[in-house]
Amino acid sequence: MSPILDRLSTLGLSLPEAPKPVAAYVPAVLADRLLFVSGQLPFRDGALMATGRVPADVTIEAATSCARQCVLNGLAVAADALGDLDRVERVVRVGCFVACEPGFGDQPKVANGASELLQEIFGESGRHARAAVGSVALPLNAPIEVEFLFKIAG
Amino acid sequence: MSPILDRLSTLGLSLPEAPKPVAAYVPAVLADRLLFVSGQLPFRDGALMATGRVPADVTIEAATSCARQCVLNGLAVAADALGDLDRVERVVRVGCFVACEPGFGDQPKVANGASELLQEIFGESGRHARAAVGSVALPLNAPIEVEFLFKIAG
Amino acid sequence: MSPILDRLSTLGLSLPEAPKPVAAYVPAVLADRLLFVSGQLPFRDGALMATGRVPADVTIEAATSCARQCVLNGLAVAADALGDLDRVERVVRVGCFVACEPGFGDQPKVANGASELLQEIFGESGRHARAAVGSVALPLNAPIEVEFLFKIAG
Repeated sequence: MSPILDRLSTLGLSLPEAPKPVAAYVPAVLADRLLFVSGQLPFRDGALMATGRVPADVTIEAATSCARQCVLNGLAVAADALGDLDRVERVVRVGCFVACEPGFGDQPKVANGASELLQEIFGESGRHARAAVGSVALPLNAPIEVEFLFKIAG
Repeated sequence: MSPILDRLSTLGLSLPEAPKPVAAYVPAVLADRLLFVSGQLPFRDGALMATGRVPADVTIEAATSCARQCVLNGLAVAADALGDLDRVERVVRVGCFVACEPGFGDQPKVANGASELLQEIFGESGRHARAAVGSVALPLNAPIEVEFLFKIAG
Repeated sequence: MSPILDRLSTLGLSLPEAPKPVAAYVPAVLADRLLFVSGQLPFRDGALMATGRVPADVTIEAATSCARQCVLNGLAVAADALGDLDRVERVVRVGCFVACEPGFGDQPKVANGASELLQEIFGESGRHARAAVGSVALPLNAPIEVEFLFKIAG
């Protein structure tokens, strides 16, 4: 078994089917050794786990769970693109957009749902640079969107 | 004639003059084989095609046309930077910000204006990763801003 | 003395201590010759220089000063990651998020606080691609967040 799939299994997780893009783009592009994964929404079993803004419509806790799901979706996309998640040498950057109201400042807590899971899965190689910001509204009224940049072993 | 300029011509399009940055940055930077193009606004003939938020001030259809114009402007910038658009090997990533109101979820439709045109122009090489998100307000009150990452042939 | 530290000194500036990430990520990741620096907030002496939105809570002038501070913080992070800022060959891209109200269009003025300082410090090598956009709310209610991409000498 692959070390990363094994690790996911140990964490009680498994890769979902890679979500289809919701529009005219592709899930991921490999440019030399950098894999750019498109912004992922918190789809689970084909539906968004939540919609609306944090914290009025979606609690911080629920949004954090959504961020974890975005990671699973992003990894499913990466696995499809690479054939094998063990080719990921490093999680380089995560961009996290949180749909929220004016005055909300807990985007880092929400984004930690993604960041902590990446480190649980990849260990030291999962430690990444990050930008987490608020957004007035996201596609399909999702509460969060996360994009990923991975470095691939040469 | 260059294949890409030929393709633009077939589509009834031509490159505008590359827009000047609206502030203290440069239109594009080439780092090894990656060309980073600054966020483009929907300038046409020196003026923004529209201002305000989608959909209250700018319809989805009008914003989609703006997204197409951002592509033409971004390609004009890339052509200036590279000397020759045929050096573009792949459109890697598109970042699309749509000025909108809370609850708006059709950023993907608007961003498709950019994504579909890139594929019409570049074919398979135009298929890219994408992040499309909403923004409370954009420079000069533009309804859309699009940035581009291209991979250049080695 | 290093040319870049010398230049900072000439400008009457010095590097602060590199801010600690406010959550579960790392300040910077080097992928081959690209250094990705996490989104920086305008911390100075351990506290945010301002909070709230531009221009209602924070003037454009104050936000511009905040953008300059984000550069100093980002350079402190880069210096920690690289050991030596003189290894920076080029500032490639700056992503600037400005917390603002609907209808605000002066994100470029605010972001110039970052862009102009980078050019004062690095000269021609400091000229970068940029995306500057508005955000409904940023981490800890900061008025600005800036992320950086540097190319490192080979």
